[in-house]
Amino acid sequence: MEKHVTHSVSFTLDSWSSRRLQSVERCLDDWVSADALAGAALGAPPDLVAAMRYAVLEGGKRLRPMLVLAAFEAASGHSEEPSTAALRAACAVELIHAYSLVHDDMPCMDNDVLRRGKPTVHVQFGQASALLAGDALQAMAFEVLTPSDASVAPDVQARLCALLSRAAGSTGMAGGQAIDLASLGCTLDEDALRHMHQLKTGALLRCSVMMGAACAGASALVTDALEQYGIALGLAFQVVDDVLDVTSDSATLGKTAGKDADHAKPTYVSLLGLERSQTYAAHLLDQARAALALTGLADTSALGALADMVVHRSH
Amino acid sequence: MEKHVTHSVSFTLDSWSSRRLQSVERCLDDWVSADALAGAALGAPPDLVAAMRYAVLEGGKRLRPMLVLAAFEAASGHSEEPSTAALRAACAVELIHAYSLVHDDMPCMDNDVLRRGKPTVHVQFGQASALLAGDALQAMAFEVLTPSDASVAPDVQARLCALLSRAAGSTGMAGGQAIDLASLGCTLDEDALRHMHQLKTGALLRCSVMMGAACAGASALVTDALEQYGIALGLAFQVVDDVLDVTSDSATLGKTAGKDADHAKPTYVSLLGLERSQTYAAHLLDQARAALALTGLADTSALGALADMVVHRSH
Repeated sequence: MEKHVTHSVSFTLDSWSSRRLQSVERCLDDWVSADALAGAALGAPPDLVAAMRYAVLEGGKRLRPMLVLAAFEAASGHSEEPSTAALRAACAVELIHAYSLVHDDMPCMDNDVLRRGKPTVHVQFGQASALLAGDALQAMAFEVLTPSDASVAPDVQARLCALLSRAAGSTGMAGGQAIDLASLGCTLDEDALRHMHQLKTGALLRCSVMMGAACAGASALVTDALEQYGIALGLAFQVVDDVLDVTSDSATLGKTAGKDADHAKPTYVSLLGLERSQTYAAHLLDQARAALALTGLADTSALGALADMVVHRSH
Repeated sequence: MEKHVTHSVSFTLDSWSSRRLQSVERCLDDWVSADALAGAALGAPPDLVAAMRYAVLEGGKRLRPMLVLAAFEAASGHSEEPSTAALRAACAVELIHAYSLVHDDMPCMDNDVLRRGKPTVHVQFGQASALLAGDALQAMAFEVLTPSDASVAPDVQARLCALLSRAAGSTGMAGGQAIDLASLGCTLDEDALRHMHQLKTGALLRCSVMMGAACAGASALVTDALEQYGIALGLAFQVVDDVLDVTSDSATLGKTAGKDADHAKPTYVSLLGLERSQTYAAHLLDQARAALALTGLADTSALGALADMVVHRSH
């Protein structure tokens, strides 16, 4: 399938992503801002804004925002400034991701004290503030998707809210976390493990790609192929996550390594072993590339490079 | 102002609300359903659905849904079947309210064990499930507002998501809860107390009315007057809540009475005393009625009766 994928020779992910990362960081900084939120007559309390900023800013690979922008550019053929819709979608999905980490780290969940090399939000601000900051970040994702000016067409706003809410909710990320919780100490077969991951991490990664496609007004054919890419990439992400939990250390990961075995979590490594897990990740990367070829789009370099990065990352 | 309000002589809130309550209960039951959520190929886990259903069904006065439907009917002039948009908005705001109660009751927040006369969600299902059920209910509110069929126009979907996300987030309900948390044991002046309540409970009540107006396509003049009604009603609700915490008992309230004083929470009663708080509630009821008169709408009976009920309720 490789021959169908149009990688321009000069393409490197670092140079592609640097300006786009800057745009995303600037927008997140602007929106999750004490001035913006606390400045209004009925403003947000400064303590809450501080916890929200801590959870969102200065951290993370921003994989989901990059997927939104890469899918938007591939489907629209535009690679200059991202559209307002795509940039808002990119930030909204990151806000959902950030909130999920805050809640996931809490003592009643994973009880983790380290995230991206820093104390987790509840360690820094207390549990109640972490709970509320997460709640407010989820709401903010939908605020960001629904600007009151005319910068994003109402039908695109509605479509983006539909995609993101379903990816975040009980048949998406929150549902996957509930399965994860219920399966501690259990043996899952491969179907059940895949089901859990397709919800827990897969839904939001797939959604990122679909939101980019929606912002570009992509055809059904392109959208379907991009969805297949998103599904393969989402699963690959989790398989590699399970591998890294075994093969890497906390300093490299920026979070506690070896946790899965400590918590008796079912993982791809516990199910398939290390070597077969690595083979499976490579197979999923091929699937993702094949789906890109099916889109028929002229330039899917960034999406291809993001899939490479997901599978070959060290943290 | 009373003379401007068109109360039809035969109107009673009980008869108005009974059929509408049935519609809301049926829709909530359908949407937060094991069949609907767990039936799909990638369904929600049954444990999570059970906790969500427990949090949402069989309980609550459904004040917010009734405000949505009453505002929709007043602004549209229709009083037969509620529109799909209005019914979805009514259920969505209740899902946000339900999620906020689940999180608010958790040990790291109010640590309450009794709600609507039943054990709270974390007591019944554990803290992790309560956290995830609340998270999933917030997402579901936006799922309900964005049906993929053509039953709600995309611009109305977008407007409803915009209103609800802002009312739920850091400059709305979650922000108000953060202020509440930060002000335990503090003395607030009346402005600060009003600010807290306008966010904590007022934002969602105001939003209910605005969503009803949005579903009816109300004019700016009508929307503004209904917003004033919603603001007065929201504040009245909280003043009466503070009064009832002192004057009522746990069995009547369905939740623990006397908690505010136990937790050294600043309240209208602690600030103004009992009698002046009751006078203030009556004054806010007059304000709400005056705002209804300003709408110029032919029939605002249900909105008037809901305001009466909020101020004169016993729980």
